[in-house]
Amino acid sequence: MKFYDCAPAPSPRRVRIFIAEKGMEIPTVEVDLRAHEQHGDAFATINPHRTVPVLELDDGRRITNTAGICAYLESFQARPALLGETPLEKARIAEMEWRMETQGMMAVGEALRNRARGFRGRALTGAAGFEQIPELAERGLRRIDLYFEELDSILADRPFVAGERFSIADITALVSVDFAGWVKKRLPEQAVHARRWYESVNARPSARL
Amino acid sequence: MKFYDCAPAPSPRRVRIFIAEKGMEIPTVEVDLRAHEQHGDAFATINPHRTVPVLELDDGRRITNTAGICAYLESFQARPALLGETPLEKARIAEMEWRMETQGMMAVGEALRNRARGFRGRALTGAAGFEQIPELAERGLRRIDLYFEELDSILADRPFVAGERFSIADITALVSVDFAGWVKKRLPEQAVHARRWYESVNARPSARL
Repeated sequence: MKFYDCAPAPSPRRVRIFIAEKGMEIPTVEVDLRAHEQHGDAFATINPHRTVPVLELDDGRRITNTAGICAYLESFQARPALLGETPLEKARIAEMEWRMETQGMMAVGEALRNRARGFRGRALTGAAGFEQIPELAERGLRRIDLYFEELDSILADRPFVAGERFSIADITALVSVDFAGWVKKRLPEQAVHARRWYESVNARPSARL
Repeated sequence: MKFYDCAPAPSPRRVRIFIAEKGMEIPTVEVDLRAHEQHGDAFATINPHRTVPVLELDDGRRITNTAGICAYLESFQARPALLGETPLEKARIAEMEWRMETQGMMAVGEALRNRARGFRGRALTGAAGFEQIPELAERGLRRIDLYFEELDSILADRPFVAGERFSIADITALVSVDFAGWVKKRLPEQAVHARRWYESVNARPSARL
């Protein structure tokens, strides 16, 4: 396998942490998003959607987003399970992963990409150009506050986002919280449950990646 | 089990089709979104996120979104597999399901909720109120066009969205195409592959639900 990565970007970081938690090592190719390498001709053949992460299998087939890559790796190497084992565990993890992605990652993306100079004309990831919408950046900032409240409330009665075990939902939540730092949002002081959780997941070796 | 549904709404329809394709029957409670029943006190205890679908298990625990419910049902009753069986199949289905949801369902939601009178002050699903952003409605319409192009391109070389077998990605794509009709967008004449696929999946008994 071969992993197309970009060290500073949040989405491939989710997969890097996932791989590390599985105890796997996969050769990596760095794609320079800051130099817009994903929009060049060479990368178009790797992923026409112009995004990382991408996982290339040994037969040359490629999986072009986080959801697909994590489903593959979980199925390829079951333990430690990051998507759950029992029906209820799988349900809770999928439910929470969806919330962490749509309420966390996407809120930050909305806030960042609709106001940062570097994303002018590219307010959405992918091949098509979209202009920034300033009101959407504002909405994103408000959504991050709500996300932090939700995260704190979720973690009031459990050690990890989806229950008793570390899962992909913790990875997406951790990456979302760090990504929110890009728009200067941090877990508030009063979010004591979320802060306790953050300290614990951020202390795992995989979080250094 | 008990299923909280809303007949006209697109998200619970995804789950209704999923249940039917599994050959299961689950008692249903209709929630009247048009009368804002989801914002009433009674529903707050069912799902504080104020959305349907919700699946209630026999022990009273509840799963509060499509991703969680489908993961549960797939794990509870494996066949017919709608999330895939082999690692590669699971990867392709998760990859495509993510695209159908983020590029299809969410684009239509963006177009509809940011301009329809009935969604004023509720431009996002959930408990928090958000004002409409007219530019976002416009962006949503453009994204639907791109989605239809992508769908046509995906289906040029395969019978179903994720490959040789019907999967959850076909369900989400079918519901997205029908949902796009709410903002008067239909698969264009030249999208011959997507139209052939649509005829085939729309002819399944589950599509009547």
